[in-house]
Amino acid sequence: MYKVDIGKKILIANEEYARKNSRFLAKRKKLCLNMISSPGSGKTTILIRTISELKDKIKIGVIEGDIQTDIDAERIRAATSAVVQINTNGSCHLSAAQVCGALENLPTDDLDLIFIENVGNLVCPSAFELGEAGKIVVLSVAEGDDKPAKYPSIFAKSKVLLINKIDMLGAGVQVDFDVEKVKADARRLNKDIEIFPVSAKTGEGMSSWYGWLTESVGNLRL
Amino acid sequence: MYKVDIGKKILIANEEYARKNSRFLAKRKKLCLNMISSPGSGKTTILIRTISELKDKIKIGVIEGDIQTDIDAERIRAATSAVVQINTNGSCHLSAAQVCGALENLPTDDLDLIFIENVGNLVCPSAFELGEAGKIVVLSVAEGDDKPAKYPSIFAKSKVLLINKIDMLGAGVQVDFDVEKVKADARRLNKDIEIFPVSAKTGEGMSSWYGWLTESVGNLRL
Repeated sequence: MYKVDIGKKILIANEEYARKNSRFLAKRKKLCLNMISSPGSGKTTILIRTISELKDKIKIGVIEGDIQTDIDAERIRAATSAVVQINTNGSCHLSAAQVCGALENLPTDDLDLIFIENVGNLVCPSAFELGEAGKIVVLSVAEGDDKPAKYPSIFAKSKVLLINKIDMLGAGVQVDFDVEKVKADARRLNKDIEIFPVSAKTGEGMSSWYGWLTESVGNLRL
Repeated sequence: MYKVDIGKKILIANEEYARKNSRFLAKRKKLCLNMISSPGSGKTTILIRTISELKDKIKIGVIEGDIQTDIDAERIRAATSAVVQINTNGSCHLSAAQVCGALENLPTDDLDLIFIENVGNLVCPSAFELGEAGKIVVLSVAEGDDKPAKYPSIFAKSKVLLINKIDMLGAGVQVDFDVEKVKADARRLNKDIEIFPVSAKTGEGMSSWYGWLTESVGNLRL
């Protein structure tokens, strides 16, 4: 019982910061999306392509979460200078307090959209609200099609599922991934989830994802 | 400060169970290995092939950790009946207390080797000792070659690194994975780590891994 109460206290403290971040973003009419996936599913590559290809329409900044190193932030800096790195120093998820500090260091007024790239982890980040308008879960086809069943929380909570690396399907390698099964399993957990099969490498499928982003940013401007 | 102390108490309680498990295994001269990776790197497929191909030499049991579902345990049951499922109900890693209960439910005396398949997570499981003789980290080439640098803890602590899905290298897909870079980065963190590039699907490279397992089981019998 003791442990549960402490866990609740940590979550409550986190939620206070999350509400503060949410108010900060709402006041400025900025869209903020929290991107979550396993390590290596392609979050950074998706972000670089998205930022570059939308740069004439939407100004995008990134809060980059990593346990250590700034490898991903440096990669993203090639596409936008609006990047803030958070190193969690071992922690398995970003906290709303960390994001609060990062938001103060981004040129928020010049941006339309802020992506938070969370620590690579399909489990823990789903429990910590950061003040975002929505979560984006990324699943690479190389990870297998049983992931919505095995890690349901993040699929139940996300606005969008990006099924990445679809260039691997039907290529020279054997990948056990049934896109229709994943769509059905994800929709069983979350009937409203938007699903875009994409390849951030080849660009296949990205235009539908861009359409969703452009509409979501536009809705905030109304 | 408060949170840190609580975290320490949880770790200390875990270590007491880990020592209990370690004594239980040492007394019976059973090898126990804790397998850790991101979701979808191929732990279950590696285990199924290993159990099947070594079945005339080494009797292997499995403690299967999942957040929910028994999908993996059911897959493993095709290769061995000595499987115990632990559902963590949301928790992102196995605890030594859970493994303690599972060991009591395995036919330990009839086995030579017990694999613990941890929850798919490259971060949290590395902090929780389970009483195992060693950790095995699995990295799929689809996850990219920056993972030892970005998630150093588990590479620093593991006895073996299995680089899986090498059938994808040089196939019809573009995979950014330099095996030599990963080997060098892992050895910078852990000079004694054994590294076996394998494909659990095609069987390529598995014989070196089997050689290491057979020798490790044999050393316990001396």
